[in-house]
Amino acid sequence: MEKQIAVAMGVEKADLVLKGGNVINVYTGEVEVADIAISDGIIAGIGNYCGKTEVNVQGKYLSPGFIDGHLHIESTMLSPSNFAKAVLPWGTTTGICDPHEIANVCGEAGVDYMIKESKIVPFDAMFMAPSCVPATPYENNGATIDADGLDKLLDKCHGVGEFMNAPGVIYRDSDVMNKLKYAKKRGVVVDGHYPLAGEKELNAYIGAGITTDHECVDVKDACDKLRRGMYVLVREGSATRNLRDLFPIINSKTLRRLVFCTDDRQVHDLLTIGHINNNIKIAIEMGLSPVDAVTMATLNAAECYKLNDRGALAPGKIADIVVLDDLYKFNVLQVYKNGKLVAENGKALFDAQVLNCSEVRNTVHCAHIKAEDLALKLNSDIVRVMGIEPHNVTTKSLVKKVSVTNGEYDFKDGLSKICVVERHKNTGNIGIGLLDGYDIKNGAIAVSVAHDSHNIIVCGDNDRDMAIAVNEIKRVGGGMTAVHNGNIFDTLELPIAGLMCDKDIDYIATMTAKLNEYAYKVLSVNKQVEPFMTLSFMSLVVIPELKISDRGLFDYSSFNFVQIEVEK
Amino acid sequence: MEKQIAVAMGVEKADLVLKGGNVINVYTGEVEVADIAISDGIIAGIGNYCGKTEVNVQGKYLSPGFIDGHLHIESTMLSPSNFAKAVLPWGTTTGICDPHEIANVCGEAGVDYMIKESKIVPFDAMFMAPSCVPATPYENNGATIDADGLDKLLDKCHGVGEFMNAPGVIYRDSDVMNKLKYAKKRGVVVDGHYPLAGEKELNAYIGAGITTDHECVDVKDACDKLRRGMYVLVREGSATRNLRDLFPIINSKTLRRLVFCTDDRQVHDLLTIGHINNNIKIAIEMGLSPVDAVTMATLNAAECYKLNDRGALAPGKIADIVVLDDLYKFNVLQVYKNGKLVAENGKALFDAQVLNCSEVRNTVHCAHIKAEDLALKLNSDIVRVMGIEPHNVTTKSLVKKVSVTNGEYDFKDGLSKICVVERHKNTGNIGIGLLDGYDIKNGAIAVSVAHDSHNIIVCGDNDRDMAIAVNEIKRVGGGMTAVHNGNIFDTLELPIAGLMCDKDIDYIATMTAKLNEYAYKVLSVNKQVEPFMTLSFMSLVVIPELKISDRGLFDYSSFNFVQIEVEK
Repeated sequence: MEKQIAVAMGVEKADLVLKGGNVINVYTGEVEVADIAISDGIIAGIGNYCGKTEVNVQGKYLSPGFIDGHLHIESTMLSPSNFAKAVLPWGTTTGICDPHEIANVCGEAGVDYMIKESKIVPFDAMFMAPSCVPATPYENNGATIDADGLDKLLDKCHGVGEFMNAPGVIYRDSDVMNKLKYAKKRGVVVDGHYPLAGEKELNAYIGAGITTDHECVDVKDACDKLRRGMYVLVREGSATRNLRDLFPIINSKTLRRLVFCTDDRQVHDLLTIGHINNNIKIAIEMGLSPVDAVTMATLNAAECYKLNDRGALAPGKIADIVVLDDLYKFNVLQVYKNGKLVAENGKALFDAQVLNCSEVRNTVHCAHIKAEDLALKLNSDIVRVMGIEPHNVTTKSLVKKVSVTNGEYDFKDGLSKICVVERHKNTGNIGIGLLDGYDIKNGAIAVSVAHDSHNIIVCGDNDRDMAIAVNEIKRVGGGMTAVHNGNIFDTLELPIAGLMCDKDIDYIATMTAKLNEYAYKVLSVNKQVEPFMTLSFMSLVVIPELKISDRGLFDYSSFNFVQIEVEK
Repeated sequence: MEKQIAVAMGVEKADLVLKGGNVINVYTGEVEVADIAISDGIIAGIGNYCGKTEVNVQGKYLSPGFIDGHLHIESTMLSPSNFAKAVLPWGTTTGICDPHEIANVCGEAGVDYMIKESKIVPFDAMFMAPSCVPATPYENNGATIDADGLDKLLDKCHGVGEFMNAPGVIYRDSDVMNKLKYAKKRGVVVDGHYPLAGEKELNAYIGAGITTDHECVDVKDACDKLRRGMYVLVREGSATRNLRDLFPIINSKTLRRLVFCTDDRQVHDLLTIGHINNNIKIAIEMGLSPVDAVTMATLNAAECYKLNDRGALAPGKIADIVVLDDLYKFNVLQVYKNGKLVAENGKALFDAQVLNCSEVRNTVHCAHIKAEDLALKLNSDIVRVMGIEPHNVTTKSLVKKVSVTNGEYDFKDGLSKICVVERHKNTGNIGIGLLDGYDIKNGAIAVSVAHDSHNIIVCGDNDRDMAIAVNEIKRVGGGMTAVHNGNIFDTLELPIAGLMCDKDIDYIATMTAKLNEYAYKVLSVNKQVEPFMTLSFMSLVVIPELKISDRGLFDYSSFNFVQIEVEK
């Protein structure tokens, strides 16, 4: 503290002074020309300063580092340190990260790994303790985090991750109540997840202490939540893009309660359009003042998540600073994290360091699969079929007459078979169903990213290739693979919990592009479908209409399992 | 939590529903017609509800309870429970209270008393641990709170009270540094007090963790502080009224960082114009939208002081609700605190309960004073004189030729004598000086409220009446008294630390009016001067130009003691 004061007073020289930039002031909405003096990674003063090192930033615009209000690192398939390397050049210096996916595979050890690797890199990942592990009782996952487990995680986490179990809140499930009581006792932020909540349900949910929501799908939904005191996180992810729809909610009264987030973002988008900078750019394009857009990405997020040490360029705040070319072009030239230059011209200036943490490796535990294990025995030819909806992760529940030989489904009618192979506890569970609209031919695709329990999902037009694909996923300890006529084309290995790769973003982008192209061109997968990502969501039972877990077909409308055969 | 949810869901009836009012929404700037359902003192839901008790508030406006961002209860001379009774009817339900005055008399025990008595009444006094006890090293007070003492107080206080010792911060005094480090470690709010700080000084002060200021005197001062990240508390006190001067700083960008406060408010104003409602009314009169004005008095203050449980009418917030007749007339009809009706039509519906706490009683410890103890011996007739500035608490440092007989000042030239009698530790210290512009005749006035050490100040035109007045203050254990030609006219007893009365606001208002009238009419005190309050500030050595403590005359410009005689 003494040194900071001495530097502020001009008695000691700052470590670094950014000279003469246009400093974006999120407190007053102004842009002021001033020097920023930095000492020990903290902003000591703004005004007229000398430093041991001085960098001329005249004509440039300086913004506080951007904060992503809600994201899942796992969705990028990047390890935490590679994730940091990917987002820092875009100006994101802090992320509120929910390690929900890895927790469903590895439990507390998964969260520990995420925290540990994040600490190596100059990026502040604030981890939220995942609240829904398992996500539902209708599937087998790798771990359970009950209320006491959550409380233990809160010793090392910043708050509680998205509370997807809204029914558990409004119907007062006892473990859910205990989780919320632990959070309240600690005074930590609890993130919400409750699209289109009803009036009374929303009162109940917010009254229980849940203060953010990133699932608003329209203006009414967002306004309802703002009125009742929630921070609304305006999401611009890869699959879910809400900013344009929600733009009308932004005004001078509501601004302070609005935050940007990405939630799930894929490597292709990270490489091309960026991260939170993209939310800001879109908002500016739509007519929001650049300073207001920056305020949403900085001060508002800091206030929402009680991060008093950041979110503004002001004395005492950590020196996370984004240097921009222009307020409207909004290109990120340089990024300082804790007063150090960590990215320049789109490139990180540090190395990722993927930890070889045994607790999150070798997480695929299932027996070798034979083709006959995947046989779909039917005692009727009128069956329920999952109907893919193009560009969406929901399905329609269809009823079709299918082709059956010797009491088994025989693939002759062109439907794809989809199986979920339990891979955590070697239960031998295999859920088997049929998929319409995927259209795979002469092969199979398998992936160990399968929301939210991350069992192995495989889809194909013959059991032999499907078994080969599952066994390949088992062999590499998780990943994405494509098989054609008995041959493995290629595999993106995701050795970290079967969710994340240990290589960098370029490798992942190249491999996913290659596998997707192969799926379309060689395996004839429907071009209206994302070959791997679509499969990853076929096991997400909490959205409509017909889904599949390792325990079988799940019908959303009755919210229970159903037999594949339709009773006559 | 379960019950709140059940009420929110409409499964259980609310304790109380305020039906159909115009609900002020500080999150969106809207006013919406809705019911407010309250359960166990908490807002369970807003919408359409039934309750065990229902109150029709159609046509009325409902605001969150007002929060005073900074105040000293002692300045009203009301005890905490009587203070609550006085402000609740005006809609103030929470106050950030700095018990700086009583701490200077009684130390930690004084703070304990304030906390204890406040808890009896339906008012949330959030006490800040006084940071400057004693206020300066140039006077004797009743207690010392060093860094460790402050840390101990923080176990029971909400944050750290106004950090008046700005030089101690910018020059890195070690005890000051330790105080700020303790506050930082606990993550509590530290209030500031730094009028017209320079650019570098402000960086240093804010960087040290001080986040509010209520001493802004003009637009530039306030803007400087807003830009560097401070919350600016816009004060409308009795002596210091800044709202009209600072009004231009309020705009849609800065609003969220602006809070209302009263700092020091006297009983007359409390009875007539009110409290924070008065700040709101003035702001509305000046053109601020009523909802914005309410937002300053509620949500902004809650955010500034990290009071997540209040500041808005929303589920999960405590049910502190002000019922208003109209957004522009802004008359308070009813006040609910924790869901209970506590004031109606200007009257509190509860009783004060003054604690008879021995630690804060009988705090006047000095010997019986004789007239000759107050003799001013002079070895020169050219002396320094404190020149009162009408309507101000500063003085001019004058040099005058005075009338001396037998080596003693003899009163023949019409100046008043002013003495500060140490009353905490019976040191026998008496500071003696001369006062120009007070003009008292044939008597004396004495008071034990004397900033910031609260010794006894007495002023008169003869030593005999002055001694009588001091001895009367000693006899009653602190108070305000007026003496005329050897007779005590009347005394307002302030038995609580010599600062606060144990009677209600009407009694204090009557007594102070009576004593002031007597001072003007019988003792001929200058009508440009507040007879008692002006004296109370003559011992405040940290403001210009010539002041007096129990240790002698103090010169602000040299910031040290001076002899009364001017060297020739």
